[in-house]
Amino acid sequence: MAQSIQLLRSPVLPAGFRAAGMACGIKGGGKPDLGMLVSDCPAVCWATFTTNRIKASPVKLSMRHLKGGQLQAVLVNSGNANACNGRQGDKDARMMAKAAADASGLKERQVFVCSTGIIGVPLPVEKIQEAAPAVVKSLRPGGLRDFSRAILTSDKRNKVVSARISIEGREVTITGVAKGAGMIAPNMATMLAFITTDAAVSTAEIKSATCNAVADSFNCISVDGDMSTNDTVLVMANGAAGNRAIRPGSKASRVFRSALARVMLELAWKLVRDGEGVTKFVTIEVLGAASQEDARRVAESVANSSLVKCSWNGSDPNWGRVIDAVGYSGARVQESKVDIFFGGLAGARGGQVARTSIARLKAAVSRKEFTVTINLNIGRGTHRVFTSDLSEGYVAYNRLEYALKLQGR
Amino acid sequence: MAQSIQLLRSPVLPAGFRAAGMACGIKGGGKPDLGMLVSDCPAVCWATFTTNRIKASPVKLSMRHLKGGQLQAVLVNSGNANACNGRQGDKDARMMAKAAADASGLKERQVFVCSTGIIGVPLPVEKIQEAAPAVVKSLRPGGLRDFSRAILTSDKRNKVVSARISIEGREVTITGVAKGAGMIAPNMATMLAFITTDAAVSTAEIKSATCNAVADSFNCISVDGDMSTNDTVLVMANGAAGNRAIRPGSKASRVFRSALARVMLELAWKLVRDGEGVTKFVTIEVLGAASQEDARRVAESVANSSLVKCSWNGSDPNWGRVIDAVGYSGARVQESKVDIFFGGLAGARGGQVARTSIARLKAAVSRKEFTVTINLNIGRGTHRVFTSDLSEGYVAYNRLEYALKLQGR
Repeated sequence: MAQSIQLLRSPVLPAGFRAAGMACGIKGGGKPDLGMLVSDCPAVCWATFTTNRIKASPVKLSMRHLKGGQLQAVLVNSGNANACNGRQGDKDARMMAKAAADASGLKERQVFVCSTGIIGVPLPVEKIQEAAPAVVKSLRPGGLRDFSRAILTSDKRNKVVSARISIEGREVTITGVAKGAGMIAPNMATMLAFITTDAAVSTAEIKSATCNAVADSFNCISVDGDMSTNDTVLVMANGAAGNRAIRPGSKASRVFRSALARVMLELAWKLVRDGEGVTKFVTIEVLGAASQEDARRVAESVANSSLVKCSWNGSDPNWGRVIDAVGYSGARVQESKVDIFFGGLAGARGGQVARTSIARLKAAVSRKEFTVTINLNIGRGTHRVFTSDLSEGYVAYNRLEYALKLQGR
Repeated sequence: MAQSIQLLRSPVLPAGFRAAGMACGIKGGGKPDLGMLVSDCPAVCWATFTTNRIKASPVKLSMRHLKGGQLQAVLVNSGNANACNGRQGDKDARMMAKAAADASGLKERQVFVCSTGIIGVPLPVEKIQEAAPAVVKSLRPGGLRDFSRAILTSDKRNKVVSARISIEGREVTITGVAKGAGMIAPNMATMLAFITTDAAVSTAEIKSATCNAVADSFNCISVDGDMSTNDTVLVMANGAAGNRAIRPGSKASRVFRSALARVMLELAWKLVRDGEGVTKFVTIEVLGAASQEDARRVAESVANSSLVKCSWNGSDPNWGRVIDAVGYSGARVQESKVDIFFGGLAGARGGQVARTSIARLKAAVSRKEFTVTINLNIGRGTHRVFTSDLSEGYVAYNRLEYALKLQGR
């Protein structure tokens, strides 16, 4: 019997974690832009990073610190990605880690650093250095919301999820915080996510559980198909719950993994719902593909089609554009077998128009959240992607950012 | 010495071709939606088609008729793509060919048929059958403009180009007509193009010349990254100019190919400039890639990035988004070597911000037409793609089409 996962109405940090958030002046106007998250004791950690070949300086540094296996703290700034800043960017990322380490009595290699915001603008690292003692001083077990607000960029809402499970009779909390509203694409996005848990977890278990949970959550969302230079998901397990370290294949592992996956999936959904200009949350479900890989191709091709996304924005059940994107996805397809459903109602059957009335189909696509099911009917491959519409609001938001931010130059 | 190619200010059909266009009632409101193009004598032909695995019925039929090697006429309807209509669609495409053949005294297999418009709506083929005698009757050497108007869908302007060259002292005309404004992606798009020439051309020459010219023109444009079910480029050479048949490798072939490529490139540019909601025409030029394939990957990744295209719409020289798309293109990249130029002005050098003032960069991107040059500086691969911005107008146009067209159902 699967153990129930309790999602907390008021998310809290797991035992042995403290967090803080404040304004250090990168964004200006007193907006929070510096967050810190610390485990009181050494934590077992694993992280996944952007697969973009252009990686931000903090990503490159954090990849090395992760390998060191000693992480205990995370320092995050928003408002500047510290990406494409050359050697100065690499130095600035190290200065960030040093500032956090000096202020908290940790070693540099125990600090994981993340930056999110504009690409190609030098990081005003001195502001972070100046603020580091203050952010360390304000760390507290109740600092989750402050932290979650400090890491946001174009997000409209903060994104926090807490799940509670029982492992060997001990209460375990898994809490995730994420940011990211544009540049959302499969295989990570302009998104940061920090998952903390007081469970004790073995190194092998945290690696495998993290990779699996990311694959089924953050790597299954797409807003605009752009993949950023800074994406990072970090999982920290500090063992404060007092359970025996969870190992792969154990009963505790099954419970832990399902809760970790649930927390990440809830965060991933929040990312899509809060995407730039998003007015619809759409689940694309592909069934009957010749392979899992083909199912993924089809789902992503449909999720990234501008024409399809525009039609959803207009509440238009345009299955012709969907089947067109299926056709150019690269997956094996037999036109006469393709069924397409909107909210469970057939738009197309056997590759041609179904008998459902347009009024009913339109009603299904008019909802704020609906599922598009594509059954290729030629195999057993399945895949799901969570995505959004493409709105005039998305364009209006993204046509301006860079020059505005640099207008002082 | 390269022979000069003369582009005609007033395009005309080559000798021995006649064309016509009229309204047959598919679009309604008296809008032209049926066009025909005929060679007075058998023509040597070649065509390239969409690589979408979902192909419209007229595409499948025309592929077979092309193999027959006897083409002499083309019948095109706009307003309905006759795609995803199952067996009825295949029958209707044959009925279209039969109607044109019966009215003009040709055989069915001598008729090439094309449809463009909405996907998944049964073709009202009886309207085409009724109109076929009238469209044949109105065929005339001066019918080029009527034909060019009848094949349009969401296009705002008709697209016709005539080039004149001399082959063995004989005047040869090459005239192209195209349509297509959305679903424009590399490897063909929702586009149709018909190129006629009075040159005599061998079968081997027309195949090779067509494929090369398409690769450097229609396959190098992208508006929205969507590839349609109906794309077709047909080249017909009827030999009316009286030259000896042009063979591959000959001096005449070099002249013919450069003129054919020029006509297709001019048409491809017209397609991008007239793209849905397009306010900017952008040439993406990739240099110094590790291979030609890598150069193509980078150019297409940038051309299809919604974030990059939105920034152009706002006249924003956002090189950070460009380098981000370079990074996830899959091409080999060394961040510290990447240079990015807008209209020849450096936005980034060596993977970081260049010293050019933002005001000058902004002026370059404020032009209606500009070039973005990306030099990876690691090899000799080059590629060019012609593309556009992404505007609120694109979204506004594409959020509605299908339901509007079906509102009567």
